[in-house]
Amino acid sequence: MNGFDIITFLSDFGWSGGYVASCEAAVTRLQPHARVMHISHEVAVGDVAAGALILQRVAPLYPPAVHLAVIDPGVGTERLPLAVTTARGDALVGPDNGLLLPAADVLGGLTGAWMLTPERVLIRAGLSGGRVSATFHGRDIFAPVAALLSSAVDPAQYGAPMDPAALVRLPPAISQLTPQGALAEVIEIDRFGNVGLALRFEDFVPGDGRLSVDVEGEDLPEWSARVVQTYGDLGAGELGVFCDSWGQVALALNAASAAQLLSVERGMMVRLTRSAAGS
Amino acid sequence: MNGFDIITFLSDFGWSGGYVASCEAAVTRLQPHARVMHISHEVAVGDVAAGALILQRVAPLYPPAVHLAVIDPGVGTERLPLAVTTARGDALVGPDNGLLLPAADVLGGLTGAWMLTPERVLIRAGLSGGRVSATFHGRDIFAPVAALLSSAVDPAQYGAPMDPAALVRLPPAISQLTPQGALAEVIEIDRFGNVGLALRFEDFVPGDGRLSVDVEGEDLPEWSARVVQTYGDLGAGELGVFCDSWGQVALALNAASAAQLLSVERGMMVRLTRSAAGS
Amino acid sequence: MNGFDIITFLSDFGWSGGYVASCEAAVTRLQPHARVMHISHEVAVGDVAAGALILQRVAPLYPPAVHLAVIDPGVGTERLPLAVTTARGDALVGPDNGLLLPAADVLGGLTGAWMLTPERVLIRAGLSGGRVSATFHGRDIFAPVAALLSSAVDPAQYGAPMDPAALVRLPPAISQLTPQGALAEVIEIDRFGNVGLALRFEDFVPGDGRLSVDVEGEDLPEWSARVVQTYGDLGAGELGVFCDSWGQVALALNAASAAQLLSVERGMMVRLTRSAAGS
Repeated sequence: MNGFDIITFLSDFGWSGGYVASCEAAVTRLQPHARVMHISHEVAVGDVAAGALILQRVAPLYPPAVHLAVIDPGVGTERLPLAVTTARGDALVGPDNGLLLPAADVLGGLTGAWMLTPERVLIRAGLSGGRVSATFHGRDIFAPVAALLSSAVDPAQYGAPMDPAALVRLPPAISQLTPQGALAEVIEIDRFGNVGLALRFEDFVPGDGRLSVDVEGEDLPEWSARVVQTYGDLGAGELGVFCDSWGQVALALNAASAAQLLSVERGMMVRLTRSAAGS
Repeated sequence: MNGFDIITFLSDFGWSGGYVASCEAAVTRLQPHARVMHISHEVAVGDVAAGALILQRVAPLYPPAVHLAVIDPGVGTERLPLAVTTARGDALVGPDNGLLLPAADVLGGLTGAWMLTPERVLIRAGLSGGRVSATFHGRDIFAPVAALLSSAVDPAQYGAPMDPAALVRLPPAISQLTPQGALAEVIEIDRFGNVGLALRFEDFVPGDGRLSVDVEGEDLPEWSARVVQTYGDLGAGELGVFCDSWGQVALALNAASAAQLLSVERGMMVRLTRSAAGS
Repeated sequence: MNGFDIITFLSDFGWSGGYVASCEAAVTRLQPHARVMHISHEVAVGDVAAGALILQRVAPLYPPAVHLAVIDPGVGTERLPLAVTTARGDALVGPDNGLLLPAADVLGGLTGAWMLTPERVLIRAGLSGGRVSATFHGRDIFAPVAALLSSAVDPAQYGAPMDPAALVRLPPAISQLTPQGALAEVIEIDRFGNVGLALRFEDFVPGDGRLSVDVEGEDLPEWSARVVQTYGDLGAGELGVFCDSWGQVALALNAASAAQLLSVERGMMVRLTRSAAGS
C-alpha cells in the first residue's frame, strides 16, 4: 500500500441525491483498490471558502493522499478544472476557484499545477466516447482524475502545466488586532453552535479574564465573555472565549449554541474588547 | 478481487438511528472482505420511486457489484423479499416493491429472480436459531443475502425462482410531448433546488431560446425560462432550462433554488411551452 | 485479517464540520490498514444516553472490533478518558461518562478498564511533541488510541488500570410494569417517527388487542392503540403498538410519525393501559 490508495472527498453535494455516490463509483470503476474517505459533503451549497477551510484543516491529518474536492458553482463556465501536487506528496483535484490552495499551502506548498484537458482525461481513463456533462464535473472529470492520480498516472498526460501564480485564490478572511482587542471575521459555525474566528489564539492576548463581544453592524446587545479552556468551565448561559481545537479564537456556550445567542453567521465581523483591569 | 467485493447500499433509514450500521455490521459479520459503499440513506421516508431513480442512475457507474436497497414501507406484510441478477453481472437485493427493477433494466436486464426464503437465508448465513423481526428485514434478511451474493452463494439455495413478469413494477413517471412543448412530472429535487423532469433532453426540442414554465394545478404565475448549458450562464434570479447531468430536462437558478421559486415538489406536473418565434 | 481491522465510530459531531474526518484521518495515519465503519454521527448533541443505546444495539452485530465513541460534553474537564476490553474480544474507547458501558455489558462484560494517559498515548502513537487540545479529544486521544488498540498495543502501555466499579454509569431508563399495563420512558425516536419505549416486549403482556396510550404530564388527549406486527397492519392514522426490531415495545403509525402525533420527545414517560375485556 502507498498513501495514494486513499482518496479523500469533500463536496457540497449532500448525500440525498446520489451525487457523492456517482463520484465514488467513478473512482472505483477506474481504481478498484482506492479507498474513498469522506471528509464532508454537507458544506453549505456553493460556499467555497467554508470548504477550503475544512480541507485545509483536515487534509494534513491523513497520510499523503489524493484529495478530491468539488464545490463548484462555476461548473461548465470558464473556470478551469485543476490538479495540483504538493511537497508533502499529496495531489489535489477540483475546480480552480480557490478551494484547493489553502490545503495545498499547508501540505508543503505547490510543486505542480495542471489545467485538466477533459478529452485527454476521458482517453487516459479509458472512457473515450464518453460525454462530459456541463453540470457535473465531479463525476465526469474530477473523480476520474482522482483515480488516475491515485494510480500515479502523470498529470502531464491529461493536463497542461499552469503557472501557480495564475491560480485563483480566495480573499483572506478579515482579521485585525487592535490595542483593545481584535476585530475578526466569523469563519466557522459548527454543529455545536461554536463560533470560530479568523484569529489565531497565540496572536491574541485575551488578558486574564473577560472580554466584551460585539457583532459589527447588528443592533444587538454587547456580550461579556470569559476566557476559558473548555465548554465545561462555563456556567449555564455563560459565554466563553477559548482556543479551539484548530488553535483559533472561538466563542462557545456550555451545551448550547453561541451562534444562536449572538445571532451570527459566517462572514460577519465580531469585535472583541479586553475589559479594563479591575472592572 | 472481483466486483462482488463491492456492496452498494441505498435506503431511507437516515444515519441517526443506527439502522444503516446494523445492516453494514450484518454484512461484515458474514463477509468480512466486502466493502460497503453508501449510495444514499437520505431518500425521503418511504419514497420507493425516488430511491429507484437514484439506484438506476448510480448503480451502472460502479463495476459489477451487489446492490442492497431497502426502502420498504411494506416490511413484514405480504410483499416479497427479492433478489435478482442482471446481464452485466450485478446482483440486487431488497423488497419486491419496484425499487430494484429500474436499476436492473439498465444493468443489462434480469437474468434471474428469486423470492427469498427467510428460514433458508438464516441457515445459509449460519444464523440458524436467529429471529427475523417483522419490521427490519434490512438487517435480518436483505443484508445477510447481500453478503451471500457477495460470496457467490447461489440464490437457489435460499430462494425460490420467480417469474420476472410477476415482479412488482412502479408506474412510469408521466411525460408527454406536445406540439408546443411538453408536460412532464417532477422526478427529482436535489440539494441545490434543481428541478428534474421526466423528460429526456434529446427527445425535447426546446427551441432556440425561451420557454414558459407552468406548474399544473397551482394558482401560480407562469415563469419564463431561458435554455442554457449550465448554472453560471444565468443571471441573478433568472430561471434556466438545461440538460442535466443525467440527460434529462431540468430547471435551475444560479446559486438559488428553482424548486423554491416554483413551489414545486416531487410528483407535480410541469408544462413547458415554447415561445412563439420572435416573441 | 482479524476483527480488529474494523474500527466502528459513533459520535455527535455531524458531518458538516470535518470533525468526523479528523478522527478517521488520525486513525488512518497510525493504522493505514484499519477500516473505519461509521455507526452514526447524527446523535443529538451531547445526548450520551442516546449514543449509548445505539452503540449497545449495533456493536454486537459486528465481528469483534474496536469501537470508538465520542459524545463528550465534558471534554477537557475532570471526566476521564477511557478504554475498556470485553469478554467477546472487543475494545472500546471514549469518555468515561457512561457512553461505553451498556455496549460493553452486551459484548460479554468488561475484562479490563484503563484511564488513558494523554502523554503516553502521544508517545506510543509516535506523536511526541504533539499537543492535546482541550476541546477535541476525539482527534487527539481517542482516535489514536483506537488505532493502537487496532494494532493490538497493550492499553497498559498508555493507560492506568481502573477499577471497573469506579466507572461512570448512566442511570437506567425508567420502566415500570403495572397491573393494568406499564409506565415507560421514551428511549428512542427514529427517522420514521417511531417511539421506542424502555420496555421489553416479552416482559409486557399487551393483551389481545387494544391499549390506551397516555403521555405523562402533558395535557393531551389519550390515544387508543392496536397491537400489531408491523406498520402495514395499520390503517391510515391508526396508532399501533408493536415489538420493534430490538425486541422493545414501540408505538408507530403507518407512513407517518407517531412521535409527532403524540408530541413526545426522548425522556418523556408514556403510560400504556390495557383495555378492559370486551370494551
